[in-house]
Amino acid sequence: MVAATAEVVPRLTTALSGPLNSIESTILDYQARIESWFRSQWRKTSVPLYASVDLRNAGYKIAPVDTNLFPGGFNNLNPVFESLCIQAVQSALERLDRPVDSVSIVPENHTRNKPYLENLAVLQRIFEKAGFETRIGSVIPGLDKEMQIEMGNGSSICLEPLRRQGSSLLVNDFRPDLLILNNDLSSGIPDFLQGVDQFVMPPVNLGWSDRLKSVHFSFYRDVAQEFAALLDIDPWFIDPMFRNCGEVDFMKRAGESCLSRNVESLLKAVQKKYDEYGVSNDPFVMIKADSGTYGMGVMPIHSAEEVHDLNRKQRTKMATIKEGQKVTKAIIQEGIYTHETWGTPGRVAEPVVYLIDQNVVGGFYRVHPQRATNENLNSPGMYFERLAFDECCNSPDKEQSPDAHPNRFYTYGVIARLALLAAARETKSL
Amino acid sequence: MVAATAEVVPRLTTALSGPLNSIESTILDYQARIESWFRSQWRKTSVPLYASVDLRNAGYKIAPVDTNLFPGGFNNLNPVFESLCIQAVQSALERLDRPVDSVSIVPENHTRNKPYLENLAVLQRIFEKAGFETRIGSVIPGLDKEMQIEMGNGSSICLEPLRRQGSSLLVNDFRPDLLILNNDLSSGIPDFLQGVDQFVMPPVNLGWSDRLKSVHFSFYRDVAQEFAALLDIDPWFIDPMFRNCGEVDFMKRAGESCLSRNVESLLKAVQKKYDEYGVSNDPFVMIKADSGTYGMGVMPIHSAEEVHDLNRKQRTKMATIKEGQKVTKAIIQEGIYTHETWGTPGRVAEPVVYLIDQNVVGGFYRVHPQRATNENLNSPGMYFERLAFDECCNSPDKEQSPDAHPNRFYTYGVIARLALLAAARETKSL
Repeated sequence: MVAATAEVVPRLTTALSGPLNSIESTILDYQARIESWFRSQWRKTSVPLYASVDLRNAGYKIAPVDTNLFPGGFNNLNPVFESLCIQAVQSALERLDRPVDSVSIVPENHTRNKPYLENLAVLQRIFEKAGFETRIGSVIPGLDKEMQIEMGNGSSICLEPLRRQGSSLLVNDFRPDLLILNNDLSSGIPDFLQGVDQFVMPPVNLGWSDRLKSVHFSFYRDVAQEFAALLDIDPWFIDPMFRNCGEVDFMKRAGESCLSRNVESLLKAVQKKYDEYGVSNDPFVMIKADSGTYGMGVMPIHSAEEVHDLNRKQRTKMATIKEGQKVTKAIIQEGIYTHETWGTPGRVAEPVVYLIDQNVVGGFYRVHPQRATNENLNSPGMYFERLAFDECCNSPDKEQSPDAHPNRFYTYGVIARLALLAAARETKSL
Repeated sequence: MVAATAEVVPRLTTALSGPLNSIESTILDYQARIESWFRSQWRKTSVPLYASVDLRNAGYKIAPVDTNLFPGGFNNLNPVFESLCIQAVQSALERLDRPVDSVSIVPENHTRNKPYLENLAVLQRIFEKAGFETRIGSVIPGLDKEMQIEMGNGSSICLEPLRRQGSSLLVNDFRPDLLILNNDLSSGIPDFLQGVDQFVMPPVNLGWSDRLKSVHFSFYRDVAQEFAALLDIDPWFIDPMFRNCGEVDFMKRAGESCLSRNVESLLKAVQKKYDEYGVSNDPFVMIKADSGTYGMGVMPIHSAEEVHDLNRKQRTKMATIKEGQKVTKAIIQEGIYTHETWGTPGRVAEPVVYLIDQNVVGGFYRVHPQRATNENLNSPGMYFERLAFDECCNSPDKEQSPDAHPNRFYTYGVIARLALLAAARETKSL
């Protein structure tokens, strides 16, 4: 655990308004009850190996907008948190019913995406320090021998071809006890990953070829309702409303009426909530590819008419996502303003929280200097404030104000764990 | 997790000589094998809730000299490690077969020992942050209502009387699911702690009224042998040799011949090892009360004759220990030089490692400005270098030298876990 000096830890500047402070106070007041409830949930449903959760904090509302079960970005975590990651990995793998001594990380096929390669290097280091022999088993088509990639900072990373032998997967001649997917399988589950006799975490059918955001957020809705009942708050404070359309084709303008109908009804529902709580912002929604990732296939919409007025460029952008996959289903999600800003002048920021097992192990801010408070920040031009989370998310401090860093980070950790619980139930339902 | 600034983290200065560097190298080289072995051990034997282990590092040898299962001193850990403690506590209590939501810490009866009260406050905070309602249930005789103690830094701690109702223990009207003993029960197990229907951790019969150092170090000897075989090293590099005498009375000079015979044979055995490895130091041994704690009843001895030459003052000091308990059994333990020094001019120092569940969660150095490298440092005049462990013990870094901080701390963590495993087997054997 490296001690960070005060200078390298930028402070978050926010101008929060409205009832969030009361959400944070409530969460802080009920901390023991909340943790007891989480414990009872984890006893019922086992958690995914890891996850990252994008949150939006509007002041009057804080909610997850995306839950990633194949998180990249471990390189953006404060190194101070590394020993928490190590301990969480040890605890997760000890619970398996067969001993695991060796692992292979199965990454995305990127070879020139330096931040992604750094993420891989950090993941490999965490598993190695946790005491597991760890290799990187790539599924890059045609890769027939190891590929050493220099990362520019004097260190390098070694990708080795993953190959099938009988019902096992090998990395060269190394047979890992456990395969860790860090590849979201957007293009589908490759045949050679099917019916493998080793542990595979997360399970292959959690990849984006099978998974739908609308299914995840259905599970999340139930979780949010149970949690809100526990705290006696309106679940809307933590839950983004949504609708979905099962058959769309943006190029052919198919499903447009479903989209515009849903946009209209959702905008009305959001306005009703805004009226109830005296929120003066204009409601908006996000149309997202229901299986999308990497921030692709995401568009803010402010009226039903806008859906009909999309120009060719906008429709093209929505029609295909990562690895050229065609978008055939869409989710229309309540847009949540992010009222957190970074630095002076304030750049729009949103927190991203990382989890290993049921533990919150860190987080950072995604910042976008050219985006507004009601836009998708996961887009070209964004950057990460790596050391933003200078305190850990599991350490609330009741002697400080509900808005103090350890307490805000604790709230973020609670909301992120609600999304994790939704993902756990989603996994169980497969 | 608080980020410490570089200024508040003193560096350890050492002048290590001899083959230790090679022990550290070996441990580093075999890290994956070692962690795999520990995992298999924890599957076989469940670990105590917490422990602290005193180590001595002679350069050519590093070994535990005392294993405390009711550790005080959590206040001496670097606050940076607090989130590791929180996560470890959560993981330990989740594994119990009934849900635990509330705990009571049962402390020593100190009310004016400020460092001990600070330790209690830190322990209470860790359990609260981990999400458990936490009260302090004191067993101070005659305490019939709560006692609020100001700690001088604006904070206070509240001791409440623990009382029996049927087969339950209550703190006022609060019925904790779990009682955490932070009292080593030197004077015996009070009746009201017997047959309690709540969880009690650690079990009451691990208190010093029942426990013997010689039994612990018998278990440790076996552990050290298995571990040494795994690494193909001489177990002596990590194991303090010992003898024991079952019937001594220092005041009546009973058992003196047993003591002197054992001192002589042990000194010879140590000299033989010193000759084998070319160590030029003079061998010495420590005579310790076999059930002693708080550094009481400990004496360095350099020859068999010394045992017969003890003056009245020395014998009085050995005859009674904590809470006036009479010493009737003794362990004669190989003395291990500590070749670590702190600061300039160098003051003699020894590491103390803290564990929660099977996780190393931190440590510090015990420093004594008036003691020599072959003396007991746990004695009046000692102090603690609180922030000494500026990096975590679970994060070895193979790109640095075996002697670099993260790697030395990792080695300390490994040796401390060997002592923890011995304590786990000791607990199982009860």
